[in-house]
Amino acid sequence: MSEHDFVWDAVQRVRTGGPLVHNITNYVVMNNTANALLAAGASPIMAHAREEVEELAGLVSALVLNIGTLSLPWIEAMFVAGNVAAQRGVPIVVDPVGAGASVLRTETSIKLLAELKPSILRGNASEILAVAGAKGATKGVDSTHKASDAADAARAIATQYGCTVVVSGVEDFVTDGKREALIFGGHDIMPKVTGMGCTASAIVGAHAAVADYPFEGAVAGMAVMAVAGTIAARKAKGPGSFQVNFIDALYGMQPLDVEAGVKVEWK
Amino acid sequence: MSEHDFVWDAVQRVRTGGPLVHNITNYVVMNNTANALLAAGASPIMAHAREEVEELAGLVSALVLNIGTLSLPWIEAMFVAGNVAAQRGVPIVVDPVGAGASVLRTETSIKLLAELKPSILRGNASEILAVAGAKGATKGVDSTHKASDAADAARAIATQYGCTVVVSGVEDFVTDGKREALIFGGHDIMPKVTGMGCTASAIVGAHAAVADYPFEGAVAGMAVMAVAGTIAARKAKGPGSFQVNFIDALYGMQPLDVEAGVKVEWK
Amino acid sequence: MSEHDFVWDAVQRVRTGGPLVHNITNYVVMNNTANALLAAGASPIMAHAREEVEELAGLVSALVLNIGTLSLPWIEAMFVAGNVAAQRGVPIVVDPVGAGASVLRTETSIKLLAELKPSILRGNASEILAVAGAKGATKGVDSTHKASDAADAARAIATQYGCTVVVSGVEDFVTDGKREALIFGGHDIMPKVTGMGCTASAIVGAHAAVADYPFEGAVAGMAVMAVAGTIAARKAKGPGSFQVNFIDALYGMQPLDVEAGVKVEWK
Repeated sequence: MSEHDFVWDAVQRVRTGGPLVHNITNYVVMNNTANALLAAGASPIMAHAREEVEELAGLVSALVLNIGTLSLPWIEAMFVAGNVAAQRGVPIVVDPVGAGASVLRTETSIKLLAELKPSILRGNASEILAVAGAKGATKGVDSTHKASDAADAARAIATQYGCTVVVSGVEDFVTDGKREALIFGGHDIMPKVTGMGCTASAIVGAHAAVADYPFEGAVAGMAVMAVAGTIAARKAKGPGSFQVNFIDALYGMQPLDVEAGVKVEWK
Repeated sequence: MSEHDFVWDAVQRVRTGGPLVHNITNYVVMNNTANALLAAGASPIMAHAREEVEELAGLVSALVLNIGTLSLPWIEAMFVAGNVAAQRGVPIVVDPVGAGASVLRTETSIKLLAELKPSILRGNASEILAVAGAKGATKGVDSTHKASDAADAARAIATQYGCTVVVSGVEDFVTDGKREALIFGGHDIMPKVTGMGCTASAIVGAHAAVADYPFEGAVAGMAVMAVAGTIAARKAKGPGSFQVNFIDALYGMQPLDVEAGVKVEWK
Repeated sequence: MSEHDFVWDAVQRVRTGGPLVHNITNYVVMNNTANALLAAGASPIMAHAREEVEELAGLVSALVLNIGTLSLPWIEAMFVAGNVAAQRGVPIVVDPVGAGASVLRTETSIKLLAELKPSILRGNASEILAVAGAKGATKGVDSTHKASDAADAARAIATQYGCTVVVSGVEDFVTDGKREALIFGGHDIMPKVTGMGCTASAIVGAHAAVADYPFEGAVAGMAVMAVAGTIAARKAKGPGSFQVNFIDALYGMQPLDVEAGVKVEWK
């Protein structure tokens, strides 16, 4: 199957399967994340109450844990939901937003990896370096490194925790410790829109829910982000109109968009 | 008064009256809800702190309680604000987001109905069925039923709790136990935008604040949603641009839009 | 330096400096605020956990405290972060959203001023009057006064707390107790978009981070808001498309936009 057939097959799997994706995520991006999941054909649920996350985690096809606006009760909810998802074999995606910027974020990210054994970790290079224990500078929640800077860190995490690691950047790097892929596409306006990384983690979650393996789900999800980014950037006049066009592009994605919007290199 | 004159009169009442609508609602939709209320001519306030909701509930013209991202402190705030609003005779709208998906959501919805005696309950068919005690499948926060499936459940709730019940769907069904209305309009892209139901509840709240009776407020609010949805869908290329056009349509709504955008059947 | 050269110089300082701005702000506007900061060239971080705000406040170039959806744990986080920022000499902007609408909001605003000695206070006329102790009517979070109504209140606050005060409105008034400026521009659709005032406070924070003095930062930030508002309104068909164009205008702002979009009167 060609790279573009692989991506288009994944797009259709999400549209047909309509996976229910539970997000315990940050306040900044909840709206965008839910809209991106709906546009892609998935069904989002956002819930964080200790009293219901166990029950909800029993219903869903993927769980996305994002530490963007972390607080202690939300961390507790992440572990409760995560343990249910792990027992059920439901894919878990961890997004370590701002790891390296505070001890709370770095330690929570590592604890989520160690205790929940998530299927996928997705972050920018600075975050992946921080999770790997590198002493690097993180500028708040934005990356100060290229994806390739964090390739070794990603490989080490993948091996240590048995998960697929995505380092997103100008090109995205994906590894499960054995296989690797590079994904080219999107547009350099994307870091100027808040929460594009968080959206990527949620879309990866939707794809992991319908993929045969987490690695394939991660590659497909990042490829779909690249396609929608490429298409949206053609019509956008800035980051405001980019966001609008990005959601429209996810919703209307066609095989020709996939061909024009992404290049995947398997290694 | 014709159906379209009725809706246009309601649009003008909200624009002239500028009702202050207090929302205790979920994180996902707060921004959209506030913008929809502003675009329609109402004045939103979002506040949830136990320490201030009693005071704020004393100032407002409607109270909208939405359980979309529920937690225990927010439930407490809902009852404190709701009791003040109920004593003042201010219309209360309850939106039971995701009722049926967790015990917390179903039980909180029923307790809000029983203790606060709200004027209006608005949900999708799955949620209304769950509140009525039906053993139905809810897929997260999205409905798996048609509005007509929940008509009997809506009638039963309306009679039991003395409130107006709105079941939103492809067509919306409204009943206060005696009178009924069906509202046709909108577009099938609306369920692909997160929080359109929550926006409907807030707009219904604004209309209930200026209507003679809750039933009329509920019909008017849902009709205005249908008009804005119809107009926005003509210009949209997907759910992203639909959202933008929806707010513009609420803001610029004219009599010709009302005529073109909705059909109301009174029974 | 002419008024337009002053504003354009400030635009470039933010783009070049990319200041990291820490926001402890309300749920309604977090997404817009973060996107506005990114579009202007700054780097936002939103965080409120007691466990990390001290650490984050040690990294940032400005701190914006916004009480829009206040609760007690967030107030605590504001003081913890604020004390670190104050010790480091980092500019603090306080946005007293809804001061006057509840005792909690009014008292918290005054306590933030008294204890943290922020560089800048930015509110609408009703809020500034409430902070100054005037017995005025606030209609929820929207202003019922003109900016000029609050000029004396702003001067009194500036003198008492040693800060720059911005009263935003059709024209904006800025004073540090000695100098004063009036800023003309923007468009009357701006109050129909939720959180434009909150965005203004964040943009003022970004400018304060790179300005020589808080007064200059406040004037520059409000001028940039006016420019983006003027440009966006030309292309908008309502408040929905205004928001999209506003972010695009911040991102693409050029010297000709500044000339066409704002007038600053120094006094």
